[in-house]
Amino acid sequence: MASDRFEKQIRFIVEMDKLKRVLRQTILTNHSRQETSAEHSWHLGVMALVFSEYAETEVDLSRVLKMVLVHDLVEIDAGDTYCYDEAETHDQVEREEKAAERLFGLLPEDQAGEFRGLWEEFEARKTPEARFAAALDRLQPILQNYHTQGEMWKKNGIRSRQVVLRNQPIEEGSPMIWEYVVHLIHEAVKKGMLQE
Amino acid sequence: MASDRFEKQIRFIVEMDKLKRVLRQTILTNHSRQETSAEHSWHLGVMALVFSEYAETEVDLSRVLKMVLVHDLVEIDAGDTYCYDEAETHDQVEREEKAAERLFGLLPEDQAGEFRGLWEEFEARKTPEARFAAALDRLQPILQNYHTQGEMWKKNGIRSRQVVLRNQPIEEGSPMIWEYVVHLIHEAVKKGMLQE
Repeated sequence: MASDRFEKQIRFIVEMDKLKRVLRQTILTNHSRQETSAEHSWHLGVMALVFSEYAETEVDLSRVLKMVLVHDLVEIDAGDTYCYDEAETHDQVEREEKAAERLFGLLPEDQAGEFRGLWEEFEARKTPEARFAAALDRLQPILQNYHTQGEMWKKNGIRSRQVVLRNQPIEEGSPMIWEYVVHLIHEAVKKGMLQE
Repeated sequence: MASDRFEKQIRFIVEMDKLKRVLRQTILTNHSRQETSAEHSWHLGVMALVFSEYAETEVDLSRVLKMVLVHDLVEIDAGDTYCYDEAETHDQVEREEKAAERLFGLLPEDQAGEFRGLWEEFEARKTPEARFAAALDRLQPILQNYHTQGEMWKKNGIRSRQVVLRNQPIEEGSPMIWEYVVHLIHEAVKKGMLQE
């Protein structure tokens, strides 16, 4: 009874369940386990609602929400790449490109194009919306790390210089959030959560 | 250095992490574990992007996205109430009201009002956006159940009549999705996932 278009959309939505299996290198604030990429994406959505007033220039919030909801979908096939792991990041683009091809390809053509567009916009960080979304994507794990006494930073031997370098793009999306993050990094070093 | 307003917003966002600890009565499609309310909320966001064309009347997608992102926040304090558990549902309103008071109260006043407004709109199901969001909120666990051979339906001894009654409101939000759900329920009974 359902149209071919609708069947495709349902298959895509059922496939999306797999993002709940992708584990990130951040843990819940009660230290119980790593968070999933699905949970991380939801958290960014709520952050977008709360923090949009701090975007560098005014943003179309609806577009930010769409981007944060889909920005990690490719991890279903490509896995989560830990941002401080150079061995993993070298073929990340290739792995994610293949994943985008397959996953967005499950959707009807017009929606496949729309989803890929949102993902590419996010990755390119050229629009105010993408820069703001990317800032939230960086702030979130810093908050998780800070509020778990730096457990994953310590476990992975991360140094403050790495955190500054990796997160510098926050400034383009939200100078105000960047100022706060710099302050948090200093605090984290002072408290022994992060190596100098 | 950060303003009082910003500190409040950060505290709220860190508190939101707790929605990743709330377990629902649905499991992942690989049967590995129950899904969390944070994951469920993210899944609804992606569903809103894909299915908005089937809303009963045209909806403001941005408003739907906001609603699905915040609709379960009160569960951080009130817990997830299983929709087929009458003992649990009797004091649900009271528990959730108290939770809304505390949780939204963490935000600056203007945002507390905005978040509460979204939550109340969702609960009341009086706007096209709320009815569509509520339809997605019901479709999602049905898909999870169907694609796990009805594991949680069986475990909880659920009957098809209960599923029809509980999910009837889908029709107000999307007649097309309701038609599909009725079909799925019939299939589930035929395949022995759900009791007649």
